[in-house]
Amino acid sequence: MHNIPIAICGVGTVGSAVINLLNELAPTLASKYNLSLPIVQIGARRARDNWPFDLGQATIEQDIFKLAEDPSNQIVIELIGGVDDAYELTMRAFRANKTVITANKALIAERGNELFNEAKSRNLSYLYEASVAGGIPIVKVIQQGLAANKITRIAGIINGTCNYVLTEMAEKGNSYSDALKQAQKLGYAEADPTFDVGGIDAAHKLAILASLAFGCPLAYENIYTEGIDKLDVQDINAANELGFFIKHLAIAEIDKEDIFLRVHPTLVHKNEAIGSVNGVINGVMLDSNPLGRTFYSGAGAGGAATASAVVADLLDVALERSGSNSYGNQDSSHKFMSIEDVSSEFYLRVDVANQAGVLAKITEILSQLNISIEGITQKESHDENMLVPVFIITHQTKEKDINHAIEQIGKLPQVHNEITKLRIL
Amino acid sequence: MHNIPIAICGVGTVGSAVINLLNELAPTLASKYNLSLPIVQIGARRARDNWPFDLGQATIEQDIFKLAEDPSNQIVIELIGGVDDAYELTMRAFRANKTVITANKALIAERGNELFNEAKSRNLSYLYEASVAGGIPIVKVIQQGLAANKITRIAGIINGTCNYVLTEMAEKGNSYSDALKQAQKLGYAEADPTFDVGGIDAAHKLAILASLAFGCPLAYENIYTEGIDKLDVQDINAANELGFFIKHLAIAEIDKEDIFLRVHPTLVHKNEAIGSVNGVINGVMLDSNPLGRTFYSGAGAGGAATASAVVADLLDVALERSGSNSYGNQDSSHKFMSIEDVSSEFYLRVDVANQAGVLAKITEILSQLNISIEGITQKESHDENMLVPVFIITHQTKEKDINHAIEQIGKLPQVHNEITKLRIL
Repeated sequence: MHNIPIAICGVGTVGSAVINLLNELAPTLASKYNLSLPIVQIGARRARDNWPFDLGQATIEQDIFKLAEDPSNQIVIELIGGVDDAYELTMRAFRANKTVITANKALIAERGNELFNEAKSRNLSYLYEASVAGGIPIVKVIQQGLAANKITRIAGIINGTCNYVLTEMAEKGNSYSDALKQAQKLGYAEADPTFDVGGIDAAHKLAILASLAFGCPLAYENIYTEGIDKLDVQDINAANELGFFIKHLAIAEIDKEDIFLRVHPTLVHKNEAIGSVNGVINGVMLDSNPLGRTFYSGAGAGGAATASAVVADLLDVALERSGSNSYGNQDSSHKFMSIEDVSSEFYLRVDVANQAGVLAKITEILSQLNISIEGITQKESHDENMLVPVFIITHQTKEKDINHAIEQIGKLPQVHNEITKLRIL
Repeated sequence: MHNIPIAICGVGTVGSAVINLLNELAPTLASKYNLSLPIVQIGARRARDNWPFDLGQATIEQDIFKLAEDPSNQIVIELIGGVDDAYELTMRAFRANKTVITANKALIAERGNELFNEAKSRNLSYLYEASVAGGIPIVKVIQQGLAANKITRIAGIINGTCNYVLTEMAEKGNSYSDALKQAQKLGYAEADPTFDVGGIDAAHKLAILASLAFGCPLAYENIYTEGIDKLDVQDINAANELGFFIKHLAIAEIDKEDIFLRVHPTLVHKNEAIGSVNGVINGVMLDSNPLGRTFYSGAGAGGAATASAVVADLLDVALERSGSNSYGNQDSSHKFMSIEDVSSEFYLRVDVANQAGVLAKITEILSQLNISIEGITQKESHDENMLVPVFIITHQTKEKDINHAIEQIGKLPQVHNEITKLRIL
């Protein structure tokens, strides 16, 4: 029997799920792979009388840094979350020449470059399948399944909270704040939801995906990030009528050495697979050469999905199939581009006074800036004093050009309120 | 530089695509992985003056069996197709202690148990990602990404020809034979399409997926197989009105030790991700514990997609991340169940004479057999002499019970034509 003692650090939802899953799998691992993965230590900073799992032979270690360095375990599974302590813990484990497995996307996005360097210099494995898209094995898909491909674009629904809120708004016509309240009631959103609805969590994950797919350094700080908190349900409804769903997408694109990273609400054509990803489910679309488009969806969060990914990593290490990890190329010549340089089609909503000639003025401004229009529609109204929305779909345009147009359109005396701008996938 | 000389056997569409992809990737492999994978031999039984690829340092070997045994290559990539010669070639390569990579689903489905045993006894890798679902890395997903899960159900669109024909029928209202002609014209169907439209190719692939997912022997001969060649476009239209798409699915389910394998046209609810897989694209849905449902889609055939999978396997071997392959458990206690024992919801179309009382008689038969009905509708007609279709959707029923009911309903004097029975996912 091949025996690899492991330590698990962190006993929240994910830690408990990992321990329970490993306990459950033990007989299968023994019979199928002749493998034993005993949990010898569990790191938990607060003592408790009872635990939501069978402790087995594990001892509880309150000093998590000591656990990282303890030679009685060979693999450290870091599930404490947060950045600073997790960084310290991981570094100590590397210095003790251990493999580390993590689900911590914030840690990797914010300090992964340093951690990858350390692991690389010691020829250690650092696995993080669980950090992106929960149980969807997207990290392994990029590292192995699509290894012969050049990935050119990633578009992902990688934050379940945002997707749940948007699905509620689309399906029930609820306002953003009502949908958010519902998400909080069901435990899909935190009391302070900023991290999720503001797009920060999705940006963390996008940094990781882009680094894997493009072989570039982690570049969280280079990601243009917009949340869903400003979205008006009337735009979801209007998009629907125009043949689109609105999804909160994390998008990474590469053009030669130029990399474009962005997270924002996006109009997605209804026939795209990623448009049908609803509720808390995650979905990732990859465009690559020579394969073309592939698509992956599944549970993106929660104890079960995260444990599934953590234990998959553990088995890759134990069965010696994690190989030489690819940590991105720190010396890369890639250039991270600004959102101003991104080209998209755009959806605009302009609330105008119900007067003749305003459409002509708007189209004139767009035409002067060489922005070509795919469609423009104005809601009918018989009340001359009422504001009516004008909906515009443009062809491919640079972000800086559309911003220029919006500025000029905003100055028209007939235009009221802020102009809504959304990008189209 | 790590140098692994390889031989490629077979120079059709796939072989040529693999050679071209490897030539293209050579600089990246060198810089990213310090790896060189020179093609030293190419097996081609017929001599040619020019080849659709750069030969590089490769020599053409017309005796493919000699190539398999030649010590100047370490890995044999078998792309000749067919069963008997490919079996002989693979066995010879194993006996020469080589790793073999294949895209040959027929070979694995029909003789994989013997080949797996040989590879296992010699501790050799035998990789076959390209044999199922083309470029979708579904083999690696099952072996690695979902390794911590117990997979309970697979449902896949794994034959692009069938899916193209069904998409044509659904979208254009074309008959089966017109849609098939169109597929043939575009090169998506062979001149003799039996192998695809009869479901044999999908059954080959299902045997492979089930063996991977359930750890059971390959059991191609135990698969209940129905093609799409009997499908009437009126059933596609009726299903559409009832909220379903009709897809040709390969389904594997496990309940304790009982395994159910089947390939047939299937009604899929429109909100299922797999229902939206159109044209020649493949899609696979996996249900597993603890993860739940995940879904994968992408190009299922063609040189580019197949080469993507073959080279991914090659990189797994070269980068030492193929690990100990799991070849299924030959001593398994699994039992392969008959289609008669499968429970599904069913769609029935019964063409009846337009007379009062016939619905009552049908429902009475179903009720006496304890088959509960989810819905029954009869198309209206004012012509007493005309046949009208009755559409029935049942709740979960065993196949043998519905067959019994169909037999009895068929004996009613008002019932004409054969009764159409389709299963619902």
